[in-house]
Amino acid sequence: GVDKKILVIPGDGIGQEVTTWGRKVLETIATNYKHNFTFEEGIMGHVAIEATGNPLPDETLDKARKSDAILFGAIGHAKYDNDPTLKVRPEQGLLKIRKELGLYANLRPIKLFDELLEASSIKPEILRGADILFFRELTGDVYFGEKKRTEDRNTASDLMIYHKYEVERIARKAFEAARTRRKKLCSVDKANVLEASRLWREVVQALEKEYTDVEVEHMFIDNAAMQLVKDPKRFDVVVTGNLFGDILTDEASQIAGSMGMLASASVGDSVGFYEPIHGSAHDIAGKGIANPLASILSAALMLDISFGLKNESLRVIKAVEATLKQGFRTMDIANKHTENHLVMGTDAMGAKVLENLS
Amino acid sequence: GVDKKILVIPGDGIGQEVTTWGRKVLETIATNYKHNFTFEEGIMGHVAIEATGNPLPDETLDKARKSDAILFGAIGHAKYDNDPTLKVRPEQGLLKIRKELGLYANLRPIKLFDELLEASSIKPEILRGADILFFRELTGDVYFGEKKRTEDRNTASDLMIYHKYEVERIARKAFEAARTRRKKLCSVDKANVLEASRLWREVVQALEKEYTDVEVEHMFIDNAAMQLVKDPKRFDVVVTGNLFGDILTDEASQIAGSMGMLASASVGDSVGFYEPIHGSAHDIAGKGIANPLASILSAALMLDISFGLKNESLRVIKAVEATLKQGFRTMDIANKHTENHLVMGTDAMGAKVLENLS
Ligand SMILES: CC(C)[C@H](C(=O)O)[C@@H](O)C(=O)O
Ligand SMILES: CC(C)[C@H](C(=O)O)[C@@H](O)C(=O)O
Repeated sequence: GVDKKILVIPGDGIGQEVTTWGRKVLETIATNYKHNFTFEEGIMGHVAIEATGNPLPDETLDKARKSDAILFGAIGHAKYDNDPTLKVRPEQGLLKIRKELGLYANLRPIKLFDELLEASSIKPEILRGADILFFRELTGDVYFGEKKRTEDRNTASDLMIYHKYEVERIARKAFEAARTRRKKLCSVDKANVLEASRLWREVVQALEKEYTDVEVEHMFIDNAAMQLVKDPKRFDVVVTGNLFGDILTDEASQIAGSMGMLASASVGDSVGFYEPIHGSAHDIAGKGIANPLASILSAALMLDISFGLKNESLRVIKAVEATLKQGFRTMDIANKHTENHLVMGTDAMGAKVLENLS
Repeated sequence: GVDKKILVIPGDGIGQEVTTWGRKVLETIATNYKHNFTFEEGIMGHVAIEATGNPLPDETLDKARKSDAILFGAIGHAKYDNDPTLKVRPEQGLLKIRKELGLYANLRPIKLFDELLEASSIKPEILRGADILFFRELTGDVYFGEKKRTEDRNTASDLMIYHKYEVERIARKAFEAARTRRKKLCSVDKANVLEASRLWREVVQALEKEYTDVEVEHMFIDNAAMQLVKDPKRFDVVVTGNLFGDILTDEASQIAGSMGMLASASVGDSVGFYEPIHGSAHDIAGKGIANPLASILSAALMLDISFGLKNESLRVIKAVEATLKQGFRTMDIANKHTENHLVMGTDAMGAKVLENLS
């Protein structure tokens, strides 16, 4: 068995409800496979602002630095969305932890469980076999460039900026991953308009010469947003910047049936950070109806990527699959047209996965 | 009858092939309704660079200023896409004409012809009844903010910037349009991360007080990219910035069955500019298989918006509808599963629409 320190940061909204289940799955795996996982909890986001005035308290960041992996929930609150003038905002916590921990590569695997073929708004024949691995750059771009507001408050700006080394390191990760898959890489940019995208494209083009076994395609973001719906099967590995990655991966959630199914891994300099793609969803927070599977699948990614425990990771994925096969569904993935689906809440669904783990 | 001067700018790639048909439709309407439309042609984009070294020659801009409306095709060429270091680029022509003519509001109506219900990768029951009008801001944002490249060429940036008046004027147009429709407005931004988006949201929120009869929703771009696929019917009028609008409307083309069906109108200070949403599509350029309907529907938008000729505009739309009802299809909208579709090229399809106009 291995010894690992895991920091759990439930965050805001449904983050609280779903992360419980990611953690329970890790605990069960530890017991079943005789690993020693120790857990700590940390606060971040709106809950941290309420408690300390700071969306990412130093204490949380310290704990994060000392951990082997982090399981995160979600961030955000309607209060700030409705008042754009607020200076201290939950999302600053997430952006800061990504930057401080050097989490520059955000991996978002998009794969449909067979059982959910009918849950999507996209036709099953378009979806069947789709399997995409996104590499979203996570610590650069317009997210981290200088932000300005004029004194009269009438002009606002954000700098979209990329450095060569930032593009190169994420592109390398994507090329390497493509090698272990179908050897196709699609790099998404807007090089016909943006200088930052032209740099992006130059860097990826230069790397092509090193990875001659990988077939590379460059696509404009507008076209990519269309192709993702039109023909998701054409994609294998996709690499793109922070902003375009944010947009494309949310859109791609519809390929997996629901946002509630998608996990992500953020890696880089050291510790790995695992989180569902979905947000805090304050409209359904506290109702106990959120889908815990994205958090559970985030735990599976942690086992695989941070701990190298491939069997354990696969075991979790199989348990999710089995749960779906048994007909159990949360609201977001329930198919109205299927009689034999048992629609349940977060906790009941999480419990079913635990049962299937044992 | 009315007297109108129309400038035709076919541009690059399939722009040449399809714009012929937009123009022919305008000529036929002029004859049938006894209007006096006079046509001029202008060059822009790659073809203009080849001919003059300038993607937007002064002559074209002069003609544009003197015209009552402009019918444009498409811009772009693989040569520049493959070489991001080239300084003079086709797209600069399009961006410059948008800026010079003050075309700040780009209207992109997304509506599915019943006949194409099966052509999309999205399920018919999700699409049926979808009807969205996008207002994309067209002369600001990261498209026009300062671009920089360091001397060592290792760092590149584009400034994402918005001024209050820019947001206000496009938002007003969107609010006004919503009033004539289902009275719902969705404003799309990324206010949880971007300062320019926070300004955007503040300005739209301030206008809400003037348009109390319009129900307003603010949505983050990542969520909007997802909702557009998941539930397109939830949208009525959508207003957003230049970059987000570029991405969302291309994605939304899948709601209309194909990119080849979508027209757009750019309006602002004076002259109106009409163009398909699709690009120059150099992969199929010269093959005579491009769909001319987007150009034809752009002509319909011109008749309506620039000339106030509602009946004539409707006549064109009906002719397109009739053509589809007869089973005629270009490749992009052909349904492999339907026997009685006659798949044809650009010219045959255009000719069918002309027949249906008479
Ligand atoms: C909450 C927000 C700052 C975040 C982002 O835009 O990165 C989220 O949408 C995500 O994708 O992780
Ligand atoms: C060709 C390109 C500059 C243009 C844009 O991004 O605006 C196109 O994609 C469009 O949508 O009209």
